[in-house]
Amino acid sequence: MQKYISSEDIVAMEKQKRVHFINSIGGFKSVSLVGTADNNGKTNLAIFSSSIHIGANPALMALIFRPSPPERDTLRNLIETGFYTINHINEAIYEKAHQTSARYEKEISEFEAVGLTPTYKNDFAAPYVMESAVQIGLAFKEKIDIAINNTIMVIGEIVQVHFPENCLSKDGFLDIEKANTITCSGLDSYHVTKKLDRLSYAKPDREITSIISEYFE
Amino acid sequence: MQKYISSEDIVAMEKQKRVHFINSIGGFKSVSLVGTADNNGKTNLAIFSSSIHIGANPALMALIFRPSPPERDTLRNLIETGFYTINHINEAIYEKAHQTSARYEKEISEFEAVGLTPTYKNDFAAPYVMESAVQIGLAFKEKIDIAINNTIMVIGEIVQVHFPENCLSKDGFLDIEKANTITCSGLDSYHVTKKLDRLSYAKPDREITSIISEYFE
Repeated sequence: MQKYISSEDIVAMEKQKRVHFINSIGGFKSVSLVGTADNNGKTNLAIFSSSIHIGANPALMALIFRPSPPERDTLRNLIETGFYTINHINEAIYEKAHQTSARYEKEISEFEAVGLTPTYKNDFAAPYVMESAVQIGLAFKEKIDIAINNTIMVIGEIVQVHFPENCLSKDGFLDIEKANTITCSGLDSYHVTKKLDRLSYAKPDREITSIISEYFE
Repeated sequence: MQKYISSEDIVAMEKQKRVHFINSIGGFKSVSLVGTADNNGKTNLAIFSSSIHIGANPALMALIFRPSPPERDTLRNLIETGFYTINHINEAIYEKAHQTSARYEKEISEFEAVGLTPTYKNDFAAPYVMESAVQIGLAFKEKIDIAINNTIMVIGEIVQVHFPENCLSKDGFLDIEKANTITCSGLDSYHVTKKLDRLSYAKPDREITSIISEYFE
């Protein structure tokens, strides 16, 4: 049976129900751990399900921030130092990743509190998550205020990418399923994936075909 | 073996490889069909993998637009009429959904070209995709120019939601895996999901537990 919910129904929902509902109706989301450090080297780690691809040239990603902790600490650190990391989440660490969303005191590093390992690579200023297979280092570029609900979009440029070599396809596609990256839905639901297919570039009046990825070894 | 790619490597990549690479490294994405009509009722349908949750109260979602077709037609229509729909994609329609990305002439409706059915509900001005199990109707609220790479973020308020009643959990969570919603990676890779778990609200010094969803019948 189809159910219909109107804007009036949404407004009338009990707050926590509305948060679950609206967060889950948008579809599966990219979920990752954002690593930062302050100017004294104190590390911070926070789970985000609001990262989004903005463009490939320059290579840009955005994150949406709410004004509450731990997102607040992440935002302050990445503006202070200019750098942050985005680390994919896999089945082995998703419970620890979820635990970073607890409101720890500012002086506590979520890395230590949840049992994940900060690691520094190639002189990058922000900490990566060692247990993550796909690690992205970004330089802070722009902060856009979203006035309609007091959120903030942060745009960063990708300056480093670390990933398992055997997941890279010869056409540039990184097979993140092969890298065991997971996805999430809503506030708290985590999912592994199973590939249906890769589809060829679509053109009018031409049949779509499967793309067989050829990987580097 | 871990591979390291720097910003210089990204800039030096052949264009199409870079597009595949950067589009796939960000994680799994929400993928959906955006339905619009112009003021004469001519329909348009386009696949987007750039939708994102902005907030629950008011209930807001954003989409990123590039200045090329078919995104251009979608953008013009939703600004002209003030309304658009976001429709989840399932295994039965993902090839048709992918085909909407072909550059059809403006006078051709992608609904007809790919074989999907426009449907109107509850006096909403924009067409839904009949074959989609989760259908969201939105009112255009705000257009934000992202100057750094000439893209545009459009924010809409959710005014209607249609979904299978048995996928709604009593705490407000909509189980989109149960509704057969799929996810995507990169430009062309489609994936079904398999739930690992729902995890309880995280607090410092408290163990995370599983949430068992109780569904409406």
